[in-house]
Amino acid sequence: MTNKVFMLMTFIGVPVSVIGTMMHWSNIILFILYCLTIISLSSFMGRATESLAIVAGPRIGGLLNATFGNAVELIISIFALKAGLVEVVLASLTGSVLGNLLLVAGLSFFVGGLKFKRQEFNVYDARHNSGLLMFAVMIAFVIPEVFSINMNESSTLTLSIGTSVILILLYLSALFFKLVTHRGVYQSAAPKDAHEEEIPEWSKGKAIAVLLIATIAVAYISEHLVHTFEYVGERFGWSDLFIGVIIVAIVGNAAEHASAVLMAYKNKMDISVEIAIGSTLQVAMFVLPVLVLISLLFETSMPLIFSWQELIAMVSSVLLMVVISNDGESNWFEGLTLLAAYVIMGIGFFLL
Amino acid sequence: MTNKVFMLMTFIGVPVSVIGTMMHWSNIILFILYCLTIISLSSFMGRATESLAIVAGPRIGGLLNATFGNAVELIISIFALKAGLVEVVLASLTGSVLGNLLLVAGLSFFVGGLKFKRQEFNVYDARHNSGLLMFAVMIAFVIPEVFSINMNESSTLTLSIGTSVILILLYLSALFFKLVTHRGVYQSAAPKDAHEEEIPEWSKGKAIAVLLIATIAVAYISEHLVHTFEYVGERFGWSDLFIGVIIVAIVGNAAEHASAVLMAYKNKMDISVEIAIGSTLQVAMFVLPVLVLISLLFETSMPLIFSWQELIAMVSSVLLMVVISNDGESNWFEGLTLLAAYVIMGIGFFLL
Amino acid sequence: MTNKVFMLMTFIGVPVSVIGTMMHWSNIILFILYCLTIISLSSFMGRATESLAIVAGPRIGGLLNATFGNAVELIISIFALKAGLVEVVLASLTGSVLGNLLLVAGLSFFVGGLKFKRQEFNVYDARHNSGLLMFAVMIAFVIPEVFSINMNESSTLTLSIGTSVILILLYLSALFFKLVTHRGVYQSAAPKDAHEEEIPEWSKGKAIAVLLIATIAVAYISEHLVHTFEYVGERFGWSDLFIGVIIVAIVGNAAEHASAVLMAYKNKMDISVEIAIGSTLQVAMFVLPVLVLISLLFETSMPLIFSWQELIAMVSSVLLMVVISNDGESNWFEGLTLLAAYVIMGIGFFLL
Repeated sequence: MTNKVFMLMTFIGVPVSVIGTMMHWSNIILFILYCLTIISLSSFMGRATESLAIVAGPRIGGLLNATFGNAVELIISIFALKAGLVEVVLASLTGSVLGNLLLVAGLSFFVGGLKFKRQEFNVYDARHNSGLLMFAVMIAFVIPEVFSINMNESSTLTLSIGTSVILILLYLSALFFKLVTHRGVYQSAAPKDAHEEEIPEWSKGKAIAVLLIATIAVAYISEHLVHTFEYVGERFGWSDLFIGVIIVAIVGNAAEHASAVLMAYKNKMDISVEIAIGSTLQVAMFVLPVLVLISLLFETSMPLIFSWQELIAMVSSVLLMVVISNDGESNWFEGLTLLAAYVIMGIGFFLL
Repeated sequence: MTNKVFMLMTFIGVPVSVIGTMMHWSNIILFILYCLTIISLSSFMGRATESLAIVAGPRIGGLLNATFGNAVELIISIFALKAGLVEVVLASLTGSVLGNLLLVAGLSFFVGGLKFKRQEFNVYDARHNSGLLMFAVMIAFVIPEVFSINMNESSTLTLSIGTSVILILLYLSALFFKLVTHRGVYQSAAPKDAHEEEIPEWSKGKAIAVLLIATIAVAYISEHLVHTFEYVGERFGWSDLFIGVIIVAIVGNAAEHASAVLMAYKNKMDISVEIAIGSTLQVAMFVLPVLVLISLLFETSMPLIFSWQELIAMVSSVLLMVVISNDGESNWFEGLTLLAAYVIMGIGFFLL
Repeated sequence: MTNKVFMLMTFIGVPVSVIGTMMHWSNIILFILYCLTIISLSSFMGRATESLAIVAGPRIGGLLNATFGNAVELIISIFALKAGLVEVVLASLTGSVLGNLLLVAGLSFFVGGLKFKRQEFNVYDARHNSGLLMFAVMIAFVIPEVFSINMNESSTLTLSIGTSVILILLYLSALFFKLVTHRGVYQSAAPKDAHEEEIPEWSKGKAIAVLLIATIAVAYISEHLVHTFEYVGERFGWSDLFIGVIIVAIVGNAAEHASAVLMAYKNKMDISVEIAIGSTLQVAMFVLPVLVLISLLFETSMPLIFSWQELIAMVSSVLLMVVISNDGESNWFEGLTLLAAYVIMGIGFFLL
């Protein structure tokens, strides 16, 4: 049913977006139109990627997911970088990290916990993810930030590039570890989710076609979306930061959000956690460093330097998440705690 | 026996305090007199609250404990706020958090560990508490502090109010979680402490009367106590910060301190940890945000913004505590580590 | 075989160093010569200390190891302090902490993990060490740093001295805990490493003689080594910080590095972790505070105040290490994560 809604939204949204753009409709209306259309398109991209991943087998499939899983965000960000909106990009990636860690995982734990008293997920995966979260945020984000205080611009950029390359390499190593050397080594104590749904929804050809067309459509709309930010910000009194951290992040991740919560409600916590935390890691260890490297091709390059508020918000969230998830169990209250943290940060970014 | 000492101290301390106040005795003498009297009165309030909690059953009892457990601190703080001593209040609440986490838990682990090689407590409670400690300090205290750097006064206050409301709501949710939805779900592996003492010490009427009279007496003395700070600080060369963080915090919590250590000595670690960490959470998630909201009624409102030293001291303490307590075990050396951390912070606040 | 190489290096290196010093050879050549000679001498000191420790029994042996285990670093640092190079000393101790935590443990986990899928070490020791790491870095290093912002020089020094004394006392208490009150209490679940090698390599007399002569030689060379830093820095464009954090730290710890990795390769993870983390703790809780106290005898005293970059690098590393090691298990990917963190910090210190 959700699929049908998204299909309708896509088939109406894309042409109307094109028409609206050409007719120079009000920026506010275009902003809303673009957001909704991107959300529905990203659901198509998610389904296409999943079909391809099943056809390609777990190894190549893992790589595909790693590359296309956050393709929408990557595309929006590239157009924002081209428009010189470095701060909006950093803000939206921060928002994506916070959104996945606190909002998606929080909602999943909470909704799942309303139905089940205690929910379990693979404790080894949880610890593995904790280590990666700590590395990405506490090392790869914190060190350039703190060291750049006493550095000139060129050294800051060099450190950013070095750190980005290491992030990408470690992310690929993590895939290699999970899919090749240690596949199935760390088995969950929890009853295994039967993988009944291992039949691809679409054929290989159809999936590639959908992925291609949807990507082009997202790219077209994203390019225009980023130019509406300024007007929307002025109209609603939202800062660039708030638009980036909260609005863009939610638009870019809406489809994933829904499926993570759904899985939690079905007590498939391993999948739910994998979406929430896996997606966080993908943004932090792949999308972000790739964007740093791509930005070198544009006029304004993007160093790996967040605002202090963004950095501390991510550090706090990761530490909270590590403490909450490290035992491989969840309940509604842990979900509520994560959601409460998200609300406090949302208020903070709104008032900034 | 301790009870008799406190009774004597109360029946001498209260009238002498009144006389001394009216006769304008030396501020130093009054300061000592007030402190001792409040310590003895708070022991009465603790016993009255416990009796009422048993009569009322675990649900209402939990709420009662949550409200009156740190009533003395709440009262002292309200009078200090009324006198405009915002910084002393923040300092004394910081001191309360540090005192409970490091001094009380440290002494409990140390003294208990001298008698028993390894002491166990409920590991689920420990993890639940870790999550709450992380939320309260790393999110609810850190975010307003870091975001307020780039905010004007009004936004800072708005963020403080929002965060305070969320803290209180999450604290009440935690009670609901522990007392209603997940009561008895997370059983300790350790042998259960037989609850022999479930007979209330006092009848309902007597308990309410004691609570009422003691509260009035504490309020009266507190109002005069806060005005002696200035003189005492000058006389001994103590800063406001040191008086708040170390002296007021110890006076406000002395009764709890004693019973936590006693329980550890009897190997009832669940109760001991509950007092130390539960009390920390009560101060951080209930007393403090309530005071932020109450302060709006006074001339000087109190935002949720600590000094950097206070904030970092709490962050460090919480992280240390989480790492030490998360395995549900303690020994004398872990206690000594916490005490050593308290001493270093004590020296720091003294020299500041 | 390694022993023979080191013996050759020593018997050539020491006399050549003396001749080179007297003939005022080029500083670059002397720097390299000194470094290699110290590495080989420190291997002799390590073997002598181990022989003595076996003869003296576990209690006195533990103390001996605690005192002489990082003797080379202590000696280099004393001469650097005498030359007024306070910042180089702090940098080299930071480098020692980072090197042991990230490089040594990282290499051990990685190399061991290439041979074994999962390696286990005593989970109780891991948690005990986590607590100590948190205390040393998050409390004893962070508090003086943050409090000194608002302190004058004399208060800063007082706080440094107080903190140093507490660090040393807690370190000795930790030895007492491990060797006396809780010896054998926390047994590893992993198969115990048979202690076949409990026969001392050298007799008591020979060990003392070697220790004495090697110490004198190290002292002689160290005194001249510290004076070459300036020239080497200029020649290669290395900052004092980089020389201290990376070069001196590697030279001072090379012998330990090798043996930790070797033990991991033999799957003796308990010993490997003990060298890496035990050595970190020794530097942080013994060598460093002792140097703070010794510095009071010299013209320039050394407060316990790192640069912000050094402090944050240590805080991040400790948190990463705690999250990774707390489950008592390792694999190649965890090792790679630690190494990646080391490389990012190395780039950072190089560019600073």
